[in-house]
Amino acid sequence: MVDAAHVEDVIVSATRLGCRFAPAEPSMIKVHHLDHSRSLRVLWMLEELGLPYQVVNYQRDPKTWLAPQALRDVHPLGKSPVLQDDALVLAESGAILEYLADRYDSGRQLSPEPMPAQAPERVRYRYWLHYAEGSAMPPLVMTLVFSRLRNAPMPFFAKPIARSIADKALKGFVGPQVKLHMDWMERELGQSPWFAGERFTAADIQMSFPIQAAAARGGDMAAYPRLQSYLTRIEQRPAYQRAVERGGPLNLGGGSR
Amino acid sequence: MVDAAHVEDVIVSATRLGCRFAPAEPSMIKVHHLDHSRSLRVLWMLEELGLPYQVVNYQRDPKTWLAPQALRDVHPLGKSPVLQDDALVLAESGAILEYLADRYDSGRQLSPEPMPAQAPERVRYRYWLHYAEGSAMPPLVMTLVFSRLRNAPMPFFAKPIARSIADKALKGFVGPQVKLHMDWMERELGQSPWFAGERFTAADIQMSFPIQAAAARGGDMAAYPRLQSYLTRIEQRPAYQRAVERGGPLNLGGGSR
Repeated sequence: MVDAAHVEDVIVSATRLGCRFAPAEPSMIKVHHLDHSRSLRVLWMLEELGLPYQVVNYQRDPKTWLAPQALRDVHPLGKSPVLQDDALVLAESGAILEYLADRYDSGRQLSPEPMPAQAPERVRYRYWLHYAEGSAMPPLVMTLVFSRLRNAPMPFFAKPIARSIADKALKGFVGPQVKLHMDWMERELGQSPWFAGERFTAADIQMSFPIQAAAARGGDMAAYPRLQSYLTRIEQRPAYQRAVERGGPLNLGGGSR
Repeated sequence: MVDAAHVEDVIVSATRLGCRFAPAEPSMIKVHHLDHSRSLRVLWMLEELGLPYQVVNYQRDPKTWLAPQALRDVHPLGKSPVLQDDALVLAESGAILEYLADRYDSGRQLSPEPMPAQAPERVRYRYWLHYAEGSAMPPLVMTLVFSRLRNAPMPFFAKPIARSIADKALKGFVGPQVKLHMDWMERELGQSPWFAGERFTAADIQMSFPIQAAAARGGDMAAYPRLQSYLTRIEQRPAYQRAVERGGPLNLGGGSR
């Protein structure tokens, strides 16, 4: 007989970052998916790869827009996405997409050959996979934080000061940063139709989120025709549409971090 | 005779993210290094690899702590690090470290074999390379933003309100996020001495920055003995020390983003 406390122990001691041995069904990939979040990209990637998968849905708190506690039971950081593949429990969008490409995209339909390391498509692919969350998202998250501060409930005498602080941050620092990044992405899409080059890759899946977030958070999209056309092109992909059918549509203006 | 305007044109039109064809010396790697910044990691990686390189130093504005305009001439985002290797001009720490590992670490001294994709060391390596900037750094940058707001010059009647806003953000949201990540990193270092497993890899170089930033920005390091010992271990590495000799010591408390 297996002692429940012991099983728990084994699970905890075997936990290794993304390498947690979970007592799950061994055969089907599972995505822990939070609505209106980064995890739609993982569903989309799996649809592009044509892999079967199971979605575990989590809803944000409608008031605070925060992820529910239940996600912490899956991964200590309580964030989404989390991918479960046999014994592996893996977080971090960029790492998940790379993992899926390296493990399952053996025909290299969505990713360049790993070598040579300096091949332009590989260089670009690697760059945008990191850039999306490492550089593009932080100022977009800050846009949200200061926009919320602007509208946060507080005593009447504090409101104008809070607004002035928020406006100063948004206009003086955060806004110019967002613009810098949007200009950069727009310019890069002037070189080739997709971020890694001539064809659609997992780097485009990774890059979709900051562009969708910028569009939803008041980025002046009229000034960015290539980013607009890019969004149209990705949202027209059948695999994207199937992902939205399973995971729900994205609303990134309200509060998704 | 080559027309200067034409050369400029070629450079601009050939600019491709990190793939800019620059009229530089073709043989030696060049690092555009901003003091007290993420780019120390790139010098360190090059020292670990034993590759010759040239450092181009940039100083922050002593008042605003911002990067100088000159960095925009190297890369449109004006950020550091930027790596120049023959015709390639590449930004984004994680992408640079991966590039250097894939191209020059042929003996796999600092990086796991790329395949199989699901090998634990590869999974962890990939994860921490993304996690450092994608998840750990954003709340640490926000700590800095709100700490500065707390001490920003403003009219006397606004000060208590600004402080109250900053404290609420720091205690209510940003602080708990930083703690969540520090707990996670501490716990992971309880599984193995280095982030990817039993040996030091480029993922440790990438992870050094958020841990150093947390230590400098008032993370209660006494509660994190493994993170403390980790910092001691990396700072004792001869390659790290040589990088500091060339790039200058790190001061991350004052304002480095």
